[in-house]
Amino acid sequence: MSKIVTDILLTKDPLSMNNVISKISHPACGGLSIFVGTTRNHHDGKKVVKLEYECYSKMAKKQIQLICDDTRSKWPDVQNIAVHHRLGHVPVMDMSVIIGISSPHREDAISASKHCIEKLKANVPIWKREIYEDGSEEWQENKECDFGKT
Amino acid sequence: MSKIVTDILLTKDPLSMNNVISKISHPACGGLSIFVGTTRNHHDGKKVVKLEYECYSKMAKKQIQLICDDTRSKWPDVQNIAVHHRLGHVPVMDMSVIIGISSPHREDAISASKHCIEKLKANVPIWKREIYEDGSEEWQENKECDFGKT
Repeated sequence: MSKIVTDILLTKDPLSMNNVISKISHPACGGLSIFVGTTRNHHDGKKVVKLEYECYSKMAKKQIQLICDDTRSKWPDVQNIAVHHRLGHVPVMDMSVIIGISSPHREDAISASKHCIEKLKANVPIWKREIYEDGSEEWQENKECDFGKT
Repeated sequence: MSKIVTDILLTKDPLSMNNVISKISHPACGGLSIFVGTTRNHHDGKKVVKLEYECYSKMAKKQIQLICDDTRSKWPDVQNIAVHHRLGHVPVMDMSVIIGISSPHREDAISASKHCIEKLKANVPIWKREIYEDGSEEWQENKECDFGKT
């Protein structure tokens, strides 16, 4: 199999699905599995207008790389992985995260991308603030995140 | 929840990921799960240059609609579903099928899109011909497809 690509991007710019597709597409692969997280317009009965994401980039990238390595160890046929996360303000319906994985057969791509998004939520220290229609805002604890917990 | 969208497309034109994203995106949804099938450059040791897909469109669309209905009955929180399948010649790396599903929470979108592609392979009568580098070609039985079997 040709050289594998692991493409990790943290950016304040809008995410590009075409960029992810171009990074993961590969002539030996028959399946791409992609998960996209987007900003919802409500949470716990409050109207959300946008989210704000912050992180310590160096640590977040290191954690994401570990997740990609772990994914490859579990699904060795995986070809390319792209994990793109937006930082800063993300309005309703905009994409905050795209995870894209290619593999020769679809089953591996689907299982691996599911694993990746679950691990990303659980292990990567990216914090989220909700900004509401009434002007108030609130940092949201990521209930799934174990990072830093003893 | 606002009006749901089920968008089924069979076309000889190249598929558009941006079209799928625009069909399934929804302000109440936090997760989009997308599967893409692409043409691989090899099969059983032979070099493939392109695939050709054929179907009886009316029957294929009916079967895809049944799969979408079944998916919604299993994951009632699913918002929008797009199933776009290309027909005719599909060169290596081009997309033959895109399945995109949105839902408020990611788990439903991921499980539902996996279900959809498995059912599509098993139940939709779309036939595939492989065209090889040496000029030969071969219809491929879809081993997963039960359509028409007694």
